[in-house]
Amino acid sequence: MTVDHRTHPRRRGEALDTAILEAALDELAEVGYAGLTMERVAERARTGKASIYRRWPTRMELTLDAVRHAMPDPTSPPDTGSLRGDLLALLRESAALMDGPPGEALRGLLGDALADQQRMRELRRRSHGSGVTAMTEIARRAVARAEIDPADVTPIRLEAGHSMLRQHFLFNGTPIDDDVIVAIVDEVVVPLFRPPARGPSSAG
Amino acid sequence: MTVDHRTHPRRRGEALDTAILEAALDELAEVGYAGLTMERVAERARTGKASIYRRWPTRMELTLDAVRHAMPDPTSPPDTGSLRGDLLALLRESAALMDGPPGEALRGLLGDALADQQRMRELRRRSHGSGVTAMTEIARRAVARAEIDPADVTPIRLEAGHSMLRQHFLFNGTPIDDDVIVAIVDEVVVPLFRPPARGPSSAG
Repeated sequence: MTVDHRTHPRRRGEALDTAILEAALDELAEVGYAGLTMERVAERARTGKASIYRRWPTRMELTLDAVRHAMPDPTSPPDTGSLRGDLLALLRESAALMDGPPGEALRGLLGDALADQQRMRELRRRSHGSGVTAMTEIARRAVARAEIDPADVTPIRLEAGHSMLRQHFLFNGTPIDDDVIVAIVDEVVVPLFRPPARGPSSAG
Repeated sequence: MTVDHRTHPRRRGEALDTAILEAALDELAEVGYAGLTMERVAERARTGKASIYRRWPTRMELTLDAVRHAMPDPTSPPDTGSLRGDLLALLRESAALMDGPPGEALRGLLGDALADQQRMRELRRRSHGSGVTAMTEIARRAVARAEIDPADVTPIRLEAGHSMLRQHFLFNGTPIDDDVIVAIVDEVVVPLFRPPARGPSSAG
């Protein structure tokens, strides 16, 4: 494809990258991961395929970055003032993403990677563990508020909520019923964390 | 393919079904779900394709039944005398299955189904929830021993262990490190169940 730069001035750097990532998300929403091609993304972003390949050599890399672009910053997850509130807000946010283009992308990437160990390794290497990043911040705040005992915060517990939500997403599809999210939070994640043994003053 | 019944006497019913399911498992081990064909399974089981199609119209149905055939009976999971012991034994058993043909089958079936909502619905409809069945029996025994409070036993908690194990399996592959299993049991599943409030006598 050639671009007429008289009507579409050449974009560079961040503006072009953003246009490409948003075009990729729109394509994911419209045709799914299986139908995503660099050609179509380039047309949609009104750029050339070379601009895409220069930055994202594979569909997998482009898709992962498009998903990252669509996601809220995992280092500042919802801050509601309580562990339960933060967990509900975070998992509801994740469930909403799973019900949109990022979910379609995850389903496509995983389906593709499950057939090929090499692609799976590549997907694992490039995945960003944003669920655990967000959970780590939520647990840090709950410890700072002396709501939970820091001794109860372990890596596997920080994985539990998103792990169960993802299983539900993969096997049962979307939209994810809010009752499922409430049950994961109230019956699994919250009970794993207890108040600090020596009361609020010890955790400041 | 034609079968020479002078050298291979015609088998019927259970014997033939078992031969077909075991041939399917051997094929899964050898060529994976992507390479599984009714033709090859028929050759391996020394029967005709019609015998397979009569009972299993699709690869998905044949594979699910082959997996079920390979799995221990979920209604009588390992019985070690303690909740922790039973959980460790059950999840180790599941992890070992994931590292063999049943795991290859699950990876293949899911990869295939993720690309197609109709196949996903079919997979979900035919899946047998054996993890939850086994967990239900393990929790029942722990309640009967007055080791845990029956009020703590909820459907979502019975899913937690297998849900986390399956996520680990799908994203990290096999073999699953035993440390992961111990962490899931000791840091997530066991802490969700507390001793009965009124002591052993109330739970009999």
